[in-house]
Parts: sequence; C-alpha cells; structure tokens
Amino acid sequence: MKLCHFQYKETVYWGVVKNELVFPIDNFSDLAERENQIKLTESFDIASVKLLPPVTPSKIVCVGRNYAEHAAELGNAVPKEPLLFLKAPSSIVTEGESIIIPKQSNQVEHEGELAIIIGRTCKNLSDADDPLENVFGYVCLNDVTARDLQRADVQFTRAKSFDTFCPIGAFIENDLDVSDLRVTTKVNGVIKQDGRTSQMTFPIPLLIIYISKQMTLNPGDIIATGTPSGVSKLNEGDICEVEIEGIGVLKNPVN
Amino acid sequence: MKLCHFQYKETVYWGVVKNELVFPIDNFSDLAERENQIKLTESFDIASVKLLPPVTPSKIVCVGRNYAEHAAELGNAVPKEPLLFLKAPSSIVTEGESIIIPKQSNQVEHEGELAIIIGRTCKNLSDADDPLENVFGYVCLNDVTARDLQRADVQFTRAKSFDTFCPIGAFIENDLDVSDLRVTTKVNGVIKQDGRTSQMTFPIPLLIIYISKQMTLNPGDIIATGTPSGVSKLNEGDICEVEIEGIGVLKNPVN
Repeated sequence: MKLCHFQYKETVYWGVVKNELVFPIDNFSDLAERENQIKLTESFDIASVKLLPPVTPSKIVCVGRNYAEHAAELGNAVPKEPLLFLKAPSSIVTEGESIIIPKQSNQVEHEGELAIIIGRTCKNLSDADDPLENVFGYVCLNDVTARDLQRADVQFTRAKSFDTFCPIGAFIENDLDVSDLRVTTKVNGVIKQDGRTSQMTFPIPLLIIYISKQMTLNPGDIIATGTPSGVSKLNEGDICEVEIEGIGVLKNPVN
Repeated sequence: MKLCHFQYKETVYWGVVKNELVFPIDNFSDLAERENQIKLTESFDIASVKLLPPVTPSKIVCVGRNYAEHAAELGNAVPKEPLLFLKAPSSIVTEGESIIIPKQSNQVEHEGELAIIIGRTCKNLSDADDPLENVFGYVCLNDVTARDLQRADVQFTRAKSFDTFCPIGAFIENDLDVSDLRVTTKVNGVIKQDGRTSQMTFPIPLLIIYISKQMTLNPGDIIATGTPSGVSKLNEGDICEVEIEGIGVLKNPVN
C-alpha cells in the first residue's frame, strides 16, 4: 500500500494513495480493513493537496559505500562493516521542493538511494529476529552531498547536512520485497545512476540489525541504505529524479 | 536563572530552580515577572522530582578539536574552521543516569564540555548579528566517545552515538557570560580535564554564526562546543562529573 502525509487547507492528514487520489486515514491499526472500505467520497485529488515529508525523524542514519562500484568510483575500499554517518533532519525537503546549492560548495552531487522508515522502537536486535518487522515502509531518498567539502572535512556531516540536502519521497510503500529493486537517478532525464538493491554489500535486514546494535532506532527514524555508482554534479536549473521500482519517483529541481 | 525540565508524579513541568527548590512555570514569556512573584507554596523539593533531559533536540551539533591541547593529545592539528559532527539524539541521558559501556568498545572516554541550547530558529546569521540572542541557555554535557571505534571508523558517528553516550545536565543557566568559565571533568573525584572556555579556538559567538551558515538551527537544538585536554578511559563502577562554573555539576555513574 502507498501512504503519504499531506496537508489540505489547514489540516494535516495521513492518507492512502490510489491512482491519483488520496484517502485520509485516522490511524494505521485498521489499514487493511480501510483498504477494503475506502469510499470515493472520502478522497482528495492528489494534485489538490500539499505533500509533506513522510516523517519527522529523530535521526537520519546513513550507510556509506554500500555499493562496491560507488566506493570504487570515489577511490574508497568497501568497508568491513557498515560505515555509518548522520544527516541533520533540518536538511529534509520532499517531492517537488528545490535542492539549493550553497555558496560554500562547487561540487554538489546527487546520491539516489532507497531509505527505510522505522516503525517500532528497536535496539540490539539479534540475528534470530526478523528485522523487517520493525519497518514502517520504504521511500526514495537523495543523499545530496557537497563532494568538495566532504573531501576537505573528512567528517561527512557538513557536506551532507545543508538545508535541502535530504529530499525524501512523499510516498511510502509499506508492503514491498526490497531485496532486488532497480534504483535509478536521472538528471534532466538522463540516467546517471542505475543499480539494484541486490548489489548492496550489506543488505537491508543486516543493516537494521547492525544499526540497532549501535543505537536505539525510534519510530520515524530513517535509514538511508547507500547509493549505486554514477554520482555526478548538480547545477542550477537541473531536475533530479530518483526512481525506485515499486515505490515511485522523487523529483526535485536544483536552484 | 537556573531552569529545568522535570516530572512530578504523572505530570511534566518546566521549572525555575532556587537553592533546593523547583518552582513550576507555565511558559517562558513571563520569566522575569515570575521570578519576582514566586511563592513557596508553588514549589517542589528538588529531591522529590524526577529530573528530565533539558530538551529533545532535533539535532546535536558537536565541534571537534576546539581546544588546541586536546587536538594535540590525540595527535590532531587544530582545524582551520570548526570541525562539525552530529551525535544521535537517542544517546541522551541526564543527571544521575548511567553511562553504559557497550561491548563493542574497550576504550570509552569522557569529554566534558559546555553546550548551548538554541532558543530561536536561526539560519545564515551574519557577523553583524548578535548570535547570543539565539541562545536559550547553557548546560554541562559529556560527549562520551568510544575512542577505539572513532579511530577505526574515521567517521565519528558510531563512536559517539551509542545509547547513554550523551549525558546532558538537567540544569539550564539562561543568563551567563560564557566567555571565560572553568570546565572540569572528574573521574571518581580526581580532576582529569581542567580548561577554560576562553581557550576555545573558535569561541561561542563564532560557532553559532558558523553553524547557522551550514544548517538551520531550531529551538532546542544543542551545540556541544568541544572538550579541553585530559580525556581518559571510563571503567565500570566509575563516577564521572562534568562541572562548569556558573552552571553546576553533571554526575553520572558508569556501568
């Protein structure tokens, strides 16, 4: 099912998306039931609502160098265990909002990737647990990075935390096998990154277990699972699109 | 004035602390007025309340190597501009709560420091602005760090984001000249770190302006301003105390 967080007039809703319509829901406990009961009278045309970021995470945990070809294109080795870093939540924008190039950088690049939204508090998961039980859903994410500052600072924080550097798709897919999905990123319609989630060095279940052993994951927290090879520079006036099979497209202009 | 966030029975309050009493307040707009009107009948004995973390920040921005002697003791140069990194908010504990040594590390160290709590949304402050107008107050903070993992990972994130690795003092001082305060950290009563805020490479006003140019700071966000030299290993059973002149003491057992 596809879910979103949206505003219509002065009110904020959660909704179920079907074709070009969004159906407001009161809570998540009766989703399956609601899906059968949805009435057209309860819906909004998706073009008439303001899509909001899907969640307000208490943290955005990112995984670096999780696709071998991307590690290689930046001259890095594949790490022996997941390489974690954080992006500031103040960097979040959503569908259609602009990526703003800050004056500090001359090399801002896209990094399209699949992101996990956590649904339950989890800590110290064991290998015997099913980590996917803790997932609320999956979204497209663009881990925008000032490559020049990332190299200069060594720490990734500043280069990846400028305002607007974390576009997150408005549509959450909550029922999807994510083990082998195509992940592409286009700039002005031209495919720059084209990978499959099956190419991850550390697959999604392992990532959730690993991260839960380092820090408690809270509902709404985001895990960005790494980007395939093909990162390239964004320029003012560009349109950047991250598309993930089964989830949809996240499209942002660059200013 | 000294403020705190506390729970008494089932209710959470903000309060003004005077001596061993805490006076609940409804809001911050009339603090000065309230200070004159405080009545003893409105107070709780501080020993009878549960102190809570002072804020729930949307991010914790930390400044690395901001005291030259600390940079040197770890074999690092003083950076040319502030070196930023983030700690996960899930690492926060407060006064009296335990620092838990994770099994992943054999070298967990204290880093006592002064932290700023942001009071107003601020972005792109200019050198002509008074950055201190954006400060809600100051607290003691212990930037607990798994030194072995910090060295192995290069990225600081994991080494500094384990649960309980961010003890923050419960008492916020909102009216203080922080340009030259003594900052000490003791382990089992023995002084290990002993510095003054005047030794910062990048002083507090400059830090706020600099960070606001990289990312929007929101009310409740925390800036940890760096630690003096003298960091040392924490062991199970230790008591660690961060004391800052004019603010107070943050005391945590180690388990």
